[in-house]
Amino acid sequence: MSQSNAAQSFRAIDAIRRKRDGLELTQTEIEALVNGYTKGDVPDYQMSAWLMAVVLRGMTRTETAALTDAMLHSGEVLDLSSLPKRKVDKHSTGGVGDKTSLVLAPLVAAAGVAVPMISGRGLGHTGGTLDKLEAIPGFNVNLPVAEFRRVLEVCGCAMIGQTAEIAPADRKLYALRDVTATVESPYLICASIMSKKLAEGIDALLLDVKTGSGAFMKSQQDAVFLAELMVETGERMGKQVVALITDMDQPLGNMIGNALEVVEVIEVLRGKGPDDLRELCLHLAGWMLQLGGASKTVVEGKQISAELISSGRALDKFRKLIELQGGDPRIIDAPEKLPQASHTFKITSSKAGYVDSMQCEQIGTAGVVLGGGRERKEDSVDPAVGIVLHKKVGDRVEAGEPLATIYYNAQTRAENARSLIAQSYKISDTPPAKKRPLIHQVIGKSVEKD
Amino acid sequence: MSQSNAAQSFRAIDAIRRKRDGLELTQTEIEALVNGYTKGDVPDYQMSAWLMAVVLRGMTRTETAALTDAMLHSGEVLDLSSLPKRKVDKHSTGGVGDKTSLVLAPLVAAAGVAVPMISGRGLGHTGGTLDKLEAIPGFNVNLPVAEFRRVLEVCGCAMIGQTAEIAPADRKLYALRDVTATVESPYLICASIMSKKLAEGIDALLLDVKTGSGAFMKSQQDAVFLAELMVETGERMGKQVVALITDMDQPLGNMIGNALEVVEVIEVLRGKGPDDLRELCLHLAGWMLQLGGASKTVVEGKQISAELISSGRALDKFRKLIELQGGDPRIIDAPEKLPQASHTFKITSSKAGYVDSMQCEQIGTAGVVLGGGRERKEDSVDPAVGIVLHKKVGDRVEAGEPLATIYYNAQTRAENARSLIAQSYKISDTPPAKKRPLIHQVIGKSVEKD
Repeated sequence: MSQSNAAQSFRAIDAIRRKRDGLELTQTEIEALVNGYTKGDVPDYQMSAWLMAVVLRGMTRTETAALTDAMLHSGEVLDLSSLPKRKVDKHSTGGVGDKTSLVLAPLVAAAGVAVPMISGRGLGHTGGTLDKLEAIPGFNVNLPVAEFRRVLEVCGCAMIGQTAEIAPADRKLYALRDVTATVESPYLICASIMSKKLAEGIDALLLDVKTGSGAFMKSQQDAVFLAELMVETGERMGKQVVALITDMDQPLGNMIGNALEVVEVIEVLRGKGPDDLRELCLHLAGWMLQLGGASKTVVEGKQISAELISSGRALDKFRKLIELQGGDPRIIDAPEKLPQASHTFKITSSKAGYVDSMQCEQIGTAGVVLGGGRERKEDSVDPAVGIVLHKKVGDRVEAGEPLATIYYNAQTRAENARSLIAQSYKISDTPPAKKRPLIHQVIGKSVEKD
Repeated sequence: MSQSNAAQSFRAIDAIRRKRDGLELTQTEIEALVNGYTKGDVPDYQMSAWLMAVVLRGMTRTETAALTDAMLHSGEVLDLSSLPKRKVDKHSTGGVGDKTSLVLAPLVAAAGVAVPMISGRGLGHTGGTLDKLEAIPGFNVNLPVAEFRRVLEVCGCAMIGQTAEIAPADRKLYALRDVTATVESPYLICASIMSKKLAEGIDALLLDVKTGSGAFMKSQQDAVFLAELMVETGERMGKQVVALITDMDQPLGNMIGNALEVVEVIEVLRGKGPDDLRELCLHLAGWMLQLGGASKTVVEGKQISAELISSGRALDKFRKLIELQGGDPRIIDAPEKLPQASHTFKITSSKAGYVDSMQCEQIGTAGVVLGGGRERKEDSVDPAVGIVLHKKVGDRVEAGEPLATIYYNAQTRAENARSLIAQSYKISDTPPAKKRPLIHQVIGKSVEKD
């Protein structure tokens, strides 16, 4: 009996049972499970039982790293070592009006740090970098790996979508998690994000973990937990990783919607644009420069970034990136060449007072309702529609004064969005007592005080 | 928005999410989930995620009753109301050497209570009533419902296997639970057992919940929890249910193996056989008679049962049952007509002392290893093989004296079984301090002190 037990090979049911009972799985077990699932040897119904056990039992740090590693090595890992620069990427956990990636890729590249950026599409109430880039006429986010590498070499940055070769285990697992209520686990979120990001062949990674009413992690505690998990997982895999916990209790910047957000990106790259967005971009860029060795400190990185904006070199880099990826660079000087909505509608305040708070997720949902995001996976997005906010938290507003303008193409969609946005504003008689900071916390071993 | 939300129909993912988050599902949700799964609208991978959430989050009593009800009504519910007798069945959670069903069905029927018994096959290390019955040459456990009803009318008892018409949801769910490590949940065990038993059209049910080293519920606490759950679920569904927590820390009786257990059943029906088995059978019969209205008290029910044995009427009923279900009744007076193993082997004690304890599950496993049970579902069983125990807990044993005899047909199987059995006996210098009772506890509203 004992011999046959010893010779017994991996059985998925044992891994499920052990996780169900709160035991720690070995790296070998996790590898066998992920590889078996990717190949189709482990069926969906076993994997979903295991995923639910992970959601409810959690994972140790060692297990999380093993899962990330197995998912990373389920596909191709880019080797960019021939590129004589440090490679740094940024990943955001997703928010409303978060268009920082479009500012950061050219800005950081202009400072001499390579940015190989593989991004996603809108998810739920949050926007996606790929959808925003595709608002630029002709912009191709589906470059083959060789072309991605060429753009990166020529331009210093390149921005594409996930390819079939990268982390196929994650693609298959994500589709299963989506229909089995197993998305909401920090361990599974960490492994999903980190496996894709580490496949980019980067040296360092900056994580922008959002918290607040428009974030997936509503509480700061949950955001910090996920951030620490991702930082430790990245470090265990030999990468330098820093996470910023940043605010998403109201939309970032004033514009929401794919083409509108490109307009705001251009404004920021011109040294203008809303304060919160510009400030966060400079801060994130400062960190990326420091991680990429282009500055000694984050403060110095921010100064360099500000200069690259005022000199116009960051905007030039964006123009170059658009050109290299097949887009129309004329949109930079003529934003009216971006898709335009056929109608606008102003939402006005019913009373005077101060904006006390905004239901940020609801505003993101309004953007989806307008057609700027997807209600079902197979939906296509309308790049032209969106929302421009005229008032944000702390602003004074008079009765009848506009709070926001809706850009729309379909009347019924506009009506649904209107009520969502109107309800999301809370107007008080007095200004809000305390302003939430833009950056709540910084997490990472190599964190300097700045 | 609100209208479309209100009109939204059942989505399996919402039921999974709510159970994952520890919320209580409504009866409507549970019905929709079970019906959707039975019909194939809800896929295996969603059901297994939900099952794992149930294993780890549990269910309320109301949810458990709703699940049982939905599974019960997934198929045919027998209507035996035309039979002018009270219908009572007994169900055991499974043990080693537990052949009480074969004694009880004819014994209780002889007292005028109808016993419509639908049983299962061996599971893991435990034996199954159907496998034992099939050791009788010709005995047919696969009667159509009409024939089951006819045997019940003529004989007062009938013993068959689950039909395709009864609780199809349970059959499909059980197969899924078996491969997703979601068997071990008292809520799911309760719904599985009770949905099948309540489909028999019975008035009352006696549950024999085993506890100890040979039971699925090793701890008495777990056994009591399951028993209370099943009793309450049965009562919520309008049935009279009593549960006995009985001992399975050593095998029941002396014989293990399908044909051997039939031999021991005949001994008990002759008023002989081992004390523990005879005593438990009389006790269970006493309860069934009381539940069936054939006696005022359990004590009286035991007395009537003892008389039905000493008068030979219980054995006559067994003979009749065998005849009616196509079996060879001559085995009653000539047990050598039952399948016989070709070899026997005596396991002797290496030292003198007292049997302190027995690893009961290991002895059950030895029976499976010999070929008396199934290692895989598709295996067939060998009715002839088995084990006869010569020593049980508390018995004095001398060095070299036989502990047990193995009945076998294949040498290698016998060797594996031998070491399992030898290791399962713990011999001490002194007798065990305290004997475990045969019946630990009685659970049920209608319980009298006896």
